[in-house]
Order: sequence, then structure tokens, then C-alpha cells
Amino acid sequence: MNWLLALDYAGVAVFAATGALAASRKQLDVIGFLFLASVTGIGGGTFRDLVLDVPVFWTVDPAYLLICAAVAVLVFFTAHLVESRYRLLLWLDCIGLAAFCVMGAAKGFEASGGSAVIALVTGMLTAAFGGILRDLLANEPSVLMRPEIYVTAALAGAATYVAVISLGSPVAIAALAGIAVAFLLRGGAILRGWTMPGYKPRPGRKY
Amino acid sequence: MNWLLALDYAGVAVFAATGALAASRKQLDVIGFLFLASVTGIGGGTFRDLVLDVPVFWTVDPAYLLICAAVAVLVFFTAHLVESRYRLLLWLDCIGLAAFCVMGAAKGFEASGGSAVIALVTGMLTAAFGGILRDLLANEPSVLMRPEIYVTAALAGAATYVAVISLGSPVAIAALAGIAVAFLLRGGAILRGWTMPGYKPRPGRKY
Amino acid sequence: MNWLLALDYAGVAVFAATGALAASRKQLDVIGFLFLASVTGIGGGTFRDLVLDVPVFWTVDPAYLLICAAVAVLVFFTAHLVESRYRLLLWLDCIGLAAFCVMGAAKGFEASGGSAVIALVTGMLTAAFGGILRDLLANEPSVLMRPEIYVTAALAGAATYVAVISLGSPVAIAALAGIAVAFLLRGGAILRGWTMPGYKPRPGRKY
Repeated sequence: MNWLLALDYAGVAVFAATGALAASRKQLDVIGFLFLASVTGIGGGTFRDLVLDVPVFWTVDPAYLLICAAVAVLVFFTAHLVESRYRLLLWLDCIGLAAFCVMGAAKGFEASGGSAVIALVTGMLTAAFGGILRDLLANEPSVLMRPEIYVTAALAGAATYVAVISLGSPVAIAALAGIAVAFLLRGGAILRGWTMPGYKPRPGRKY
Repeated sequence: MNWLLALDYAGVAVFAATGALAASRKQLDVIGFLFLASVTGIGGGTFRDLVLDVPVFWTVDPAYLLICAAVAVLVFFTAHLVESRYRLLLWLDCIGLAAFCVMGAAKGFEASGGSAVIALVTGMLTAAFGGILRDLLANEPSVLMRPEIYVTAALAGAATYVAVISLGSPVAIAALAGIAVAFLLRGGAILRGWTMPGYKPRPGRKY
Repeated sequence: MNWLLALDYAGVAVFAATGALAASRKQLDVIGFLFLASVTGIGGGTFRDLVLDVPVFWTVDPAYLLICAAVAVLVFFTAHLVESRYRLLLWLDCIGLAAFCVMGAAKGFEASGGSAVIALVTGMLTAAFGGILRDLLANEPSVLMRPEIYVTAALAGAATYVAVISLGSPVAIAALAGIAVAFLLRGGAILRGWTMPGYKPRPGRKY
């Protein structure tokens, strides 16, 4: 499981960085950075663990919280060096999405005794929930409502992980495959504006 | 409990449909439909089960997730046939509210060993939470903030269920009574704009 | 623990009052008051208990819910007597923040077997979460995004509690110290606009 642990640390760190970047866009103070970084970094996994009824990961291993704190402080002092913080936020969010859809699927697959459906849902939720919380709290338009591919990438990554592990591959191979699929899909969406066929007929009227 | 199970499936399906309709109003892609449908369909019950510390219902029976997925796809291909999606959303939300306030009250009543107060709260929360999540994520004005009766209907339905079951009636009778009360109250609110006496003195000033 | 219990009741009551005041600003009906008061009053503690995997406090002792209901009704009939409801809301929120950061830290410290990091996080989350939910549901700008000190006060209060209790002081002393620190910091922020050094370089651009 060491492989997955490293992946989890990395996912928490990059999601925490997106939270801190959102805080910098809102010109919060350093504790505001800390708060948004923590909520974004550990939000998705917290929800996953609550639903699966396993101990919440950061109550077992507080290292996750220290990572969030360190990342928040780092971003507080370096965010001004970045040309476009929103663009960096999107790319870090993309890496975090790739790491978390696999982590979420792996944990859901294990906790449910091998249910593919549960694994897909926990993969999707873990990847999406941190960003949802970040955008709600920072009052930014939700990444989920953007036209380009987002949840689709998380779902595809989780599905790839589940498919490869079901074929009997070792965890490391399945994880890499899932990460690659999610990262390429979401990365392509950021770079090229890839979209899925959307619902076209007409937007909602006012109320 | 088969009676309640059917009620639960129905509630999940109609709430999932409201989530999918919200997705169509925002012109999301099909996975966006899936996501909003799932969050709306299973959100309230997930919160209820977490609070009651019972296994989250859809981790035990993944059929709920398949229902959400099927509904999402169905709405994706048929929403353009609907004259007013927001009106349909409100009516489906009304049916879901009626089903979920009873389901939530029943599960809370049982899990707490017959506490009426807990049953009222879990009934209210289960009915309201899916819609809250849907409106937060889709960035629509919350149904809870509308002037007509909403939470009141959920509370009345839950109270009716608890009162009738406390009189020794079978579950089916209590459930039907609770559903009828909630549906009529909320339905009347949609059709006729029924309101409770609101707080009148004055609205909030700016900050 | 009786000392902490009284503190918890007080925290729930004042947070419930802030929820009811927010409801009055939106001119909701009395059940809307009830709902927002309950969510705000018990939201933070609910989240804390879920994360710590202890029974959710209000499912064990429904007195908390009755407090929320009583406060909601009281505010419904008296809010018009208040000169500035938003100002009163801020001050009650300040008292609740002070009570809850200590309660959250105390419960987290105990449940985690004495982990200071966990206690800081549960203190911060318990204090901040009810207000976050209130502002999200009532569609008010989040208190967390305001420039003056907020989360910082919760963190400082929790840290004070943990520090004093770690020195071997009785719970009452540590709790009072934590409350005093949090209240003075946040109170000063309301009165004088105290801020932490914020992130200055530049605000976020549009998307």
C-alpha cells in the first residue's frame, strides 16, 4: 500500500495548493490560506471515508494536515511569482483529480469487498469533492459547471483502475493506468477545451 | 420493510430526475447529468445515514446508484420534450420531498429507538438535503429560500408519520398518511403559492 | 464534563440565534427560522462528531434540538426589536466561535487520545462549519471571506485550550483561557477591524 500512500500524499498536497491559490485570489490572510488549503486537500477523502465507514484518514495520520499547512504557507509566500494563478490552479487540480480518482476507487473497491459500482462512485466523489468545497467556500464558479471535461475524467480514471485491477494486475500498474487516463483526459480538456457532447436543446429560463 | 424500500427507490429516482433537470438547464454533458442526479438522489439519505451511524444505504445496495444513472441518461435524451423544465423539477422535487420526509422519519425513528424529535429532524434533513446540494452545485437559488412552503411540508409529513405510527398503526398506513400530508402541502404551495406567515418587519440591510 | 456541557449548550444556542437572524434577514417563515437555526447550531458539532467517529451529539441528547427550536421561535418574535441584526449576528457568532473552538478542541483531544494537531483541526472546523453552512444556505457572503480575523481566532482559541490542558490544568481553566483568547481576538476584529497581514500582491483576475 506504500505506493498508494505516496499517491495520497501527493494528491492532498496539490489539492491543498489549489485551495491556497484560491485564497490568494481572494487576498485572505495566512490562516485563510491554511483553512482553504486544508478543506480542499482533505475534503474529498474525508467524505469518502465517512461514506465507507472507515476511520477518516487524517485522524489516523496527521501528516496529511501538516502537508496542507506547509503547502499553504509556501503558496502564501510564492503565489505572486506565478503568472496566472487560475491556470496553475487548474493544472494542480488536474493532477489532484488524477491521483484522487484512483485513490478513491482503490479505497472504495477494498472497503466494499470488490464492488465496481461503489469504487466508481467513491473515485468520482473523492476527486470532485475537494474542488467543490473550495469553489463553494471561495465563491468561485464551480469547476464542475465548466463546459470542458471534468467529472468525466475522474470517472474514466476510476473505471480504468477498476478494470485493470479486476484483470489481476498489481495495484501499481492499475493505479498508473488510472492516473494516466484521468490526467490525459482532463489535461486535454484544459489545453484544448475538450468537451463531451453536452445537452444542447436550450438553457434554463429564468424562474 | 418492502413497502419502505419501494418508497425509497421512488424518492431517489425523482430526486435524481430533478438533479438531471438542473443539469439540463446548465447544459452540462451526460456525465454532468450523472453527477448532479446522483448527488441529488442520494445526498439526503447519505447525510441521514451518516448522522444515524448506520451503513450508508447505497454502499449496501448499489441498485440506488444504477437508478440514478438510468434516470440521468433518460433525462439527457428527453428533457427537450418538456415544456417547462423548472416546473417539472418543482413537481418531482415535491414527490421526492414527500417520499423522503417519511423515509427519513422512519429510519430515524427506528435507529433512535423511537425518539420523535430525532425522527422529525432526520425526516426534515433527508427531504431537504438533496435539493440543497443540487441547488448549491448547480448555482440555482435554493428551494429553501423561496417564499412558499417547503421545509414546513417535510416537517409536517414527518410529524404525521411519527404521530400515526405512535398510535400503533402499521408502517404502510403511517407512510401513506405522511406522504399525503407532505405532498398536499407542498403541492398546494406550488399551485397556489401557499405560504406560512413569514417574518415581515423588514428585510436585511446590506453589510 | 458538566462544564463543557453547559458551554456546548450555550454555543449551540448562540449559533442557532445567528441562523435565525439570517432567516429574518431573508424574511423566511417560522419553519425556515427553525431550519436555519438548527443547521447553524448543530452543523459544526455534527461534522466534528462524524469525523471523530463518535455518536453525533444531538442524536444522543435531543435537548440540543429543543434549544435550537426555542431560540428560533424567540428570534422570530423579537428580531424586529434589534437595531442592526447583522451586527448582533456577528457578535453572537463571535460568542459561538469562542465556545465551539474550545468544545471542538476538547472533544478532538479526547477522542484522538491527546493529539494536539487533531484537536486544533476539530476546534477550527467545529467553530467555522456552522457559520459556513448558514452563509451558504442563506446566500450571504461567507464570514470566512471577510477581511477581519475569523478562523485565526478559532485556531488561537483551540491552541490556547490545548496548550493549557497539556500543562496539566483542569478543563475549566483551559476552557476559560481558550474562550477568552478567541473572544478577544474575534471581538477586536469586529470592533476595530483587526486583520492579519493578508495576501497583498494582487487579487484574482477574471477567468
